Amino acid sequence: MSKLDTLIQDLVIANRILAKEDVVDAYGHISVRHPDNPNHFFISRSLAPELIEKGDIVELDLDGHPIGDEKRSLYLERFIHAGIYQLRPDVNSVVHAHAEDTLPFGIAKATKLKPVIHSGSFIGNEVPVWDIAKKFGDTNVLVTNMAQALDLAKTLGKNNIALMRGHGFASAARSLIEVVRMSVYLPRNARALMRAKQLGGPIKYLSQGEIDARNSGYSPYSPETWRAWEYWANKAACGHLLTRPDGGHVHGQKT
Amino acid sequence: MSKLDTLIQDLVIANRILAKEDVVDAYGHISVRHPDNPNHFFISRSLAPELIEKGDIVELDLDGHPIGDEKRSLYLERFIHAGIYQLRPDVNSVVHAHAEDTLPFGIAKATKLKPVIHSGSFIGNEVPVWDIAKKFGDTNVLVTNMAQALDLAKTLGKNNIALMRGHGFASAARSLIEVVRMSVYLPRNARALMRAKQLGGPIKYLSQGEIDARNSGYSPYSPETWRAWEYWANKAACGHLLTRPDGGHVHGQKT
Amino acid sequence: MSKLDTLIQDLVIANRILAKEDVVDAYGHISVRHPDNPNHFFISRSLAPELIEKGDIVELDLDGHPIGDEKRSLYLERFIHAGIYQLRPDVNSVVHAHAEDTLPFGIAKATKLKPVIHSGSFIGNEVPVWDIAKKFGDTNVLVTNMAQALDLAKTLGKNNIALMRGHGFASAARSLIEVVRMSVYLPRNARALMRAKQLGGPIKYLSQGEIDARNSGYSPYSPETWRAWEYWANKAACGHLLTRPDGGHVHGQKT
Amino acid sequence: MSKLDTLIQDLVIANRILAKEDVVDAYGHISVRHPDNPNHFFISRSLAPELIEKGDIVELDLDGHPIGDEKRSLYLERFIHAGIYQLRPDVNSVVHAHAEDTLPFGIAKATKLKPVIHSGSFIGNEVPVWDIAKKFGDTNVLVTNMAQALDLAKTLGKNNIALMRGHGFASAARSLIEVVRMSVYLPRNARALMRAKQLGGPIKYLSQGEIDARNSGYSPYSPETWRAWEYWANKAACGHLLTRPDGGHVHGQKT
Repeated sequence: MSKLDTLIQDLVIANRILAKEDVVDAYGHISVRHPDNPNHFFISRSLAPELIEKGDIVELDLDGHPIGDEKRSLYLERFIHAGIYQLRPDVNSVVHAHAEDTLPFGIAKATKLKPVIHSGSFIGNEVPVWDIAKKFGDTNVLVTNMAQALDLAKTLGKNNIALMRGHGFASAARSLIEVVRMSVYLPRNARALMRAKQLGGPIKYLSQGEIDARNSGYSPYSPETWRAWEYWANKAACGHLLTRPDGGHVHGQKT
Repeated sequence: MSKLDTLIQDLVIANRILAKEDVVDAYGHISVRHPDNPNHFFISRSLAPELIEKGDIVELDLDGHPIGDEKRSLYLERFIHAGIYQLRPDVNSVVHAHAEDTLPFGIAKATKLKPVIHSGSFIGNEVPVWDIAKKFGDTNVLVTNMAQALDLAKTLGKNNIALMRGHGFASAARSLIEVVRMSVYLPRNARALMRAKQLGGPIKYLSQGEIDARNSGYSPYSPETWRAWEYWANKAACGHLLTRPDGGHVHGQKT
Repeated sequence: MSKLDTLIQDLVIANRILAKEDVVDAYGHISVRHPDNPNHFFISRSLAPELIEKGDIVELDLDGHPIGDEKRSLYLERFIHAGIYQLRPDVNSVVHAHAEDTLPFGIAKATKLKPVIHSGSFIGNEVPVWDIAKKFGDTNVLVTNMAQALDLAKTLGKNNIALMRGHGFASAARSLIEVVRMSVYLPRNARALMRAKQLGGPIKYLSQGEIDARNSGYSPYSPETWRAWEYWANKAACGHLLTRPDGGHVHGQKT
Repeated sequence: MSKLDTLIQDLVIANRILAKEDVVDAYGHISVRHPDNPNHFFISRSLAPELIEKGDIVELDLDGHPIGDEKRSLYLERFIHAGIYQLRPDVNSVVHAHAEDTLPFGIAKATKLKPVIHSGSFIGNEVPVWDIAKKFGDTNVLVTNMAQALDLAKTLGKNNIALMRGHGFASAARSLIEVVRMSVYLPRNARALMRAKQLGGPIKYLSQGEIDARNSGYSPYSPETWRAWEYWANKAACGHLLTRPDGGHVHGQKT
């Protein structure tokens, strides 16, 4: 399998993982930048992530237009991905989703979402909240054009995650595995913080130094990162689709 | 398959989806108005929604009486559907259910259930709470005759959803797909609002303009609406029963 | 199958339902009084409810002693059942379990568990809390002899459910189906009340008149009661074991 | 099968149980001390607990070094186990995990985690909270060397469980079955306490006498303990791997 074929297959796996882990349902999507052409990215046609196969992946440019002749319906909110890839050359993978336990933090203004657990460190110390109404007034709350997408990407800034008021979140990372990991642990961090608040008293957040120490030690194919990817893929019944980029052996597959 | 056969099959799918998505358990039901005779509607005989097949669907009139000779037991609360169809000619599908996370809003008077997330917009800005005791005193809390049903329908008014105190909710929409979607996202909106309240501070609800913008853009067979219907049906192991009203291809089925 | 064989099989089904509905885990048990000998009752030997088959059911007397030569281990807390059957001749079936969402009401003294939803009406207006320490001081918190069991049964009194502080609950009803139904909806009523409390403001409980109206209309083999039993049994993969006491047809079985 | 083979197989079962019961996900691990050499212990190579088989188990010494020539990646945090085995000769099995509902008690300082339910008694009356930052400043929050592990073990002291701030917990017990049981019921006790706090009013904890009474009556192969182990193993699809140390019959297996 070519490197590009492997990446597309990993994108299929990532879709199924996000569905299995309740990050997406019928809605929400994940994309990956074209490794050889930074002005293109891959994402599914309009289809629920759990049902996606290789043939459903389409190639779009950084304005959200399909490359070549594409007759199938596309995600209305594909612009979110295009906008973030435009403003953030360091980003290679983007998730937009509505994971339930992230929603309260975009609705209630009193509590900021910040890392309180080690697996939540990758969301970063600052999680801005973008409100589409601030600049665009009364809309259907969806990001359906590049102007809205670029405004969201500007609010995201250098951060890894932006909450979207009354809607969900966008997360951005250097690799597919990293953005999946961040998107799976984001709701867990949100729950830990909500419940800690209910217990009362002061909250102990991760320090900036702890967040930095974790980030600097991160590598997308370390045994620790691979362990989670392999686990999630097996839970989502995609173990047989796994490929190690280093050609190493994969659990449950014949050598 | 005739248009009517397809509708009945969609009603079977809708029952199984509501069961899989925890909107109904042994109790709760969904109906659809007869497309050629607005004075009749279809609903299952008395059976748990997860177990329903085509042969279980019966045809009732707008007083809740079965058409023809029907010996099987019927839902005690079929009158809810009859009452809403009587007073609301624009409504073609009704759900009555006890989805757990809607219940607190019918019990506690301090917090009104209103849309806080985009997928909850379809519940509308006003969700009235109907208390059967107000007019009918001490009952078994069930809606078991037309007088009670019409009183509930009057409280529902022009809205899409009425909460029923200590019991559940009734939702009404233009189509089967729309009422399923509303009934699935209603508890999610309820949870988002409950948790936002716990975080403290002011709550940012959807504005009336946002609700209107979403409603005006809604179409029951848009790619976005179909995407959810197709996803939920596959999750409920009904993917093979799907039919597109426009004759289009369905995911996972041979052409 | 004889009437007694059917009852034993229903007891097996009830065990599996309580496991599937998260009322019991490895611990917790359900019993039924011998229909022809009110001084005996049936219960499983010491085994997790999900794993129970017909051969695991044993017959005990109202002191918790096995009838005949029984070498297998018995539940340490079988006395709970014996004690309630001794003091309550109207009771034919008993559940003891630790369903998680009932626990807070035995630990926190500020909020009484009372019916707030129609499916919770059968728990009755008064749910006493029994604290083993009050009379027996520091124990292992288990009910391991008749003196403790009779004290619990005395606290239960004429009610349907007693909470056991730091431990769980005991429920008692006229029939197997009724006690299962009560035990499944008890935690749901507890959750609805907990969440309503969090929303704030006054709580609207079911009135005594509503509770009475529901009780007086209850019949263990009405279509509504059967609907739930049939549904739960199918969910617990026991649909093929169902028998209607009136010889009627059962969903999913050949006639 | 030799006694050692049986222990290794039990360790595999324990891994799968902890995964099924949501105590671990891709991360978290369980170990058991070598029964014939107290200076060695067994633990999996770096792999998600749900996927572990016999061949994945490795033998380490009490500094966390592998015995013999081991090329596969090891858990970064294996030192937690080594440190506890060093300081606690009475301990034969250790779990480290991030079970979600234990996390708030390590983050919020206002509420101490203590036993409120009988199945939580084994966590003991004192659950210290260890904060890695106190001695080691800004780290990646993981326990990656013996100095950190020994500091954690010192905080654990004579107790059964130590919470780890912003990270998870470590639990220590006399046997594999005991540490699994404690780790499964720890989050349940945490939830019961959190919800009781939300109900308001004073909380009734287990008394020291009750905790002592339960501990003194505990035996790892009593029918009650075996019942849970057998149930969890079957739920985790490991029923066929069970062995009774006394050679007794196992549910669902041929004699």
